Amino acid sequence: MRDIHAMSPERGRMRLRSVGVSGIRKPLTVQRPEGTHTLAVTFHVSVDLPSERKGSDLSRNAEILAEAVDETTTRPVEGLESACSAIARELLVRHPYATEASVEASAEYFLRKGVSEEKRSFEDYTLIAEAHASRGPEGLVALARAVGAEAVGMTACPCAMETCRDRLTREFPMLASPELKDLPMITHNQRNHTRLVFEIPDASDVEVDDLIAAIESAQSSPTYAILKRGDEAQVVLDAHRHPKFVEDVLRDLLAGLPGRFPDVPDATTVRASTVSEESIHKFNVEASHQVTFGELRRSRGR
Amino acid sequence: MRDIHAMSPERGRMRLRSVGVSGIRKPLTVQRPEGTHTLAVTFHVSVDLPSERKGSDLSRNAEILAEAVDETTTRPVEGLESACSAIARELLVRHPYATEASVEASAEYFLRKGVSEEKRSFEDYTLIAEAHASRGPEGLVALARAVGAEAVGMTACPCAMETCRDRLTREFPMLASPELKDLPMITHNQRNHTRLVFEIPDASDVEVDDLIAAIESAQSSPTYAILKRGDEAQVVLDAHRHPKFVEDVLRDLLAGLPGRFPDVPDATTVRASTVSEESIHKFNVEASHQVTFGELRRSRGR
Amino acid sequence: MRDIHAMSPERGRMRLRSVGVSGIRKPLTVQRPEGTHTLAVTFHVSVDLPSERKGSDLSRNAEILAEAVDETTTRPVEGLESACSAIARELLVRHPYATEASVEASAEYFLRKGVSEEKRSFEDYTLIAEAHASRGPEGLVALARAVGAEAVGMTACPCAMETCRDRLTREFPMLASPELKDLPMITHNQRNHTRLVFEIPDASDVEVDDLIAAIESAQSSPTYAILKRGDEAQVVLDAHRHPKFVEDVLRDLLAGLPGRFPDVPDATTVRASTVSEESIHKFNVEASHQVTFGELRRSRGR
Amino acid sequence: MRDIHAMSPERGRMRLRSVGVSGIRKPLTVQRPEGTHTLAVTFHVSVDLPSERKGSDLSRNAEILAEAVDETTTRPVEGLESACSAIARELLVRHPYATEASVEASAEYFLRKGVSEEKRSFEDYTLIAEAHASRGPEGLVALARAVGAEAVGMTACPCAMETCRDRLTREFPMLASPELKDLPMITHNQRNHTRLVFEIPDASDVEVDDLIAAIESAQSSPTYAILKRGDEAQVVLDAHRHPKFVEDVLRDLLAGLPGRFPDVPDATTVRASTVSEESIHKFNVEASHQVTFGELRRSRGR
Repeated sequence: MRDIHAMSPERGRMRLRSVGVSGIRKPLTVQRPEGTHTLAVTFHVSVDLPSERKGSDLSRNAEILAEAVDETTTRPVEGLESACSAIARELLVRHPYATEASVEASAEYFLRKGVSEEKRSFEDYTLIAEAHASRGPEGLVALARAVGAEAVGMTACPCAMETCRDRLTREFPMLASPELKDLPMITHNQRNHTRLVFEIPDASDVEVDDLIAAIESAQSSPTYAILKRGDEAQVVLDAHRHPKFVEDVLRDLLAGLPGRFPDVPDATTVRASTVSEESIHKFNVEASHQVTFGELRRSRGR
Repeated sequence: MRDIHAMSPERGRMRLRSVGVSGIRKPLTVQRPEGTHTLAVTFHVSVDLPSERKGSDLSRNAEILAEAVDETTTRPVEGLESACSAIARELLVRHPYATEASVEASAEYFLRKGVSEEKRSFEDYTLIAEAHASRGPEGLVALARAVGAEAVGMTACPCAMETCRDRLTREFPMLASPELKDLPMITHNQRNHTRLVFEIPDASDVEVDDLIAAIESAQSSPTYAILKRGDEAQVVLDAHRHPKFVEDVLRDLLAGLPGRFPDVPDATTVRASTVSEESIHKFNVEASHQVTFGELRRSRGR
Repeated sequence: MRDIHAMSPERGRMRLRSVGVSGIRKPLTVQRPEGTHTLAVTFHVSVDLPSERKGSDLSRNAEILAEAVDETTTRPVEGLESACSAIARELLVRHPYATEASVEASAEYFLRKGVSEEKRSFEDYTLIAEAHASRGPEGLVALARAVGAEAVGMTACPCAMETCRDRLTREFPMLASPELKDLPMITHNQRNHTRLVFEIPDASDVEVDDLIAAIESAQSSPTYAILKRGDEAQVVLDAHRHPKFVEDVLRDLLAGLPGRFPDVPDATTVRASTVSEESIHKFNVEASHQVTFGELRRSRGR
Repeated sequence: MRDIHAMSPERGRMRLRSVGVSGIRKPLTVQRPEGTHTLAVTFHVSVDLPSERKGSDLSRNAEILAEAVDETTTRPVEGLESACSAIARELLVRHPYATEASVEASAEYFLRKGVSEEKRSFEDYTLIAEAHASRGPEGLVALARAVGAEAVGMTACPCAMETCRDRLTREFPMLASPELKDLPMITHNQRNHTRLVFEIPDASDVEVDDLIAAIESAQSSPTYAILKRGDEAQVVLDAHRHPKFVEDVLRDLLAGLPGRFPDVPDATTVRASTVSEESIHKFNVEASHQVTFGELRRSRGR
């Protein structure tokens, strides 16, 4: 029987950048200081394909995932990122004709948080991990990897707050009184999704909980499942005392990174993006940026 | 060659309630007073299947849609709802073994709206239409139909507004002054999706623009694409002067229907639902109800 | 400070059928014979709202979920269905003004399966559970519950198989030879999603793994992550030896239930639906039915 | 009243790459030789933001879209791509502080197609257009643009076809007969989504219908809404006579481009990707590539 994959392509004998499987779901068991977690992960794994080969042996991708991921139910791994790195390396081993291997993974992640200790509840976040393995001239494999997170929080618009203050002061002249100078004003607020990914050149470790903390501190306020009346007022007040455009969320997030992550090397690239689902519009407002830790450190203080 | 569909089922010789095609997209051209519109419609059409028949002739469903919908590019129809009714009747003609035929359709719909005449812009809504045809004892076909719409607007929470007022008054005692009694207070606001569907027993007509107007008047405020600074303040102010729970949106919507639709018969069933994408939570808040126009009319005034 | 929720509604003083929270994600830890699993569950929980009350105390819903679900990390529960029943009962306790409480839950679920023992891998399924609690005249709470599953498999069309056989026999007369009578013929095949839900009147237990097995046996073939070349041929061959319309999947599934679930009471209602994402069309083909176990048992043998 | 957007950012005084609005839906009326079409378009429009400015004037983006798109109901434009170019240029005019402006648009598109002239029906496709305007040193604006399409068709796996032939020949030795050498064998087939985008450096025109034709000719077979029995056999047969991996779809598509588009300049970059929703797996198989027309032309013949 002929090996159809190993045959030459009939037409278009060119190398293809990426061939793989996507949307494959797997439970990954992770060992954490406080116990084991199971993450339900969506994987996209792929390799390049040389010009002389008709097909990529995709069943090997499913086998690698079964070995690297399914087996964690009995042998938990350190984290999603380390699993991705191991999978990327293994892809090059089992696709000997390939020179590039990519793994992209995302998973829902629960953290217990709350406005106060006794009102903590599981809040859901998204974890992101990527690994890219390249086969070099003498068979040496170089590994690039990324780790990230996405958190949902809240923003309050600083512009509408200003125009509402102006307009209400005409209607309620008492608002001009110095005693009410710091009274928080009405504005529109929205559900905000912010994503932060670090492309880390070496083996430095980044804790995803720290990424989530960085994001939540840059939004107008984090949000919580359990909010009794007083708590709700507190969250609303916090958000209105930190009114932010998506531009502010992004800059505050980026400006705070050097202080929060002193050990991350300068060569690390940061990808950050934020989306506010506007309450006063039917569409969203977005901002995104990409910058290195070195650039962030040099621009600090400005 | 055997007609596989017309054969007897090998197992489970029972009548099936519904067999059909879903997710089929078609452009429907509609004649309106101001010109023709093209709606991109998603159809789900189905019939029942008698116990003695293995399969439903599904290619007929695609043919009916091609005739009833594709042809509207040259012969526009009156509306989405009348197209659904025609399709439902035709389903029974071409599936002579069927006694029930259902058509569900939804389409995006654009209306030019704005905070003022010169700031109008196309806003997007969803149209809903359903038709159900039943073959009666002497071959007479009874038709039940529904028409509906969904609109996205804004809500402002009345509860957080009260707790924020209470809390801020302690911090800013001047807020207790009678002059500031009507000062709108901060709260959280959210993107709200509200849906209204009328199941109309006879040929009475309902204008979808009137359904959309009813929904938008029940939300804390409609939302718009074009909002210059002063407009934004106006929309925020309107929303905060009409703070509403989803419960309020639903009740205000339903309570207003008898006045807005005096000609809709008592036997008409109303299905209404509303979802607020909370800005202070990562989840949504919902309310839904079902009631007849007769019940709404009798409960009026309470 | 006024309790805004407990106030009377300003307009539309009518009882509302359902007010609650949706899209809330929670990790539920389940104790199974082989160990604990964590399910990432999407919950929709709601209660009715009496006419004299403006708002439902929705923060209680989040508290109940935090107690009933978050706590399972240390005290695992028996299953998703029992968690839903407990939540439905608790909703009536904490919403004393409500008479109806509903819980709908769905979760991804992984099972290790394979074409053979050594090629097993985690395959993903969907679990469904519902519970509805009603407060009766003397405060007695009646509980209705449902448990279900959805599985993705494969179908092969029996009609195109017949027309292809007819057509190919004209081109290849040797196909008419009796030796090739059972040769499986080409047709189109598709990814199929089938859902099976039991509405169980009492405390009888149903194993979701049995629901999944029932679904997979009714599709043309189950599908697997790991398929080496010979396995792939086996799955393709199995599917083509069991060509099925969606109608056949549904009837075979329903007809097999009395034999697979001898202990499920006659009063149990079965809801079954199946969707094939057609490979020869851009749209889907669907069938659905609803029937009681009693009806299925009486119609057996036909 | 202060202009909040024009203020300096409090923290993170850095230029941001992209700030804009996304998910905004608009009806665009296009003049075609055969009449006017209305496309329902999703736009993402953005500009960069200099370091000294707190916010981007996002209401201008909505105004530009209202002028450039809403007005096409009375003054149709040539195409989605030309509308995007005009919007990108106008973004730089109205955001004088910006140096980069991006527009990404996608729209559903209907074309009448069929297995034969009398069985034509509207089939749905996706159009893609992008425009990127850059302000150069002397205020000159450079424009880069892209145009693309996505089509859904069908693939049949060549590998499973080979393994099934091998296996069935052992069971049915007559299959080894030379008369049956070309008999199409069973395999698995799937719904395939293929996307083709041209990044065109100058004003050369590309017809989207030609992009769609290129994609459909590279899949195992196009798919259609109306397929009577004989037609269904024809499509199945065509697909099985052109079995293709996603790798083959991609290479056949790319290899055919120089012949189909002789006038597209060498500097044009082609982005192509294809996804097959596997019927024998619960996940998808994907391939993607990026190459210039110059490279495609030079590699031709190989």
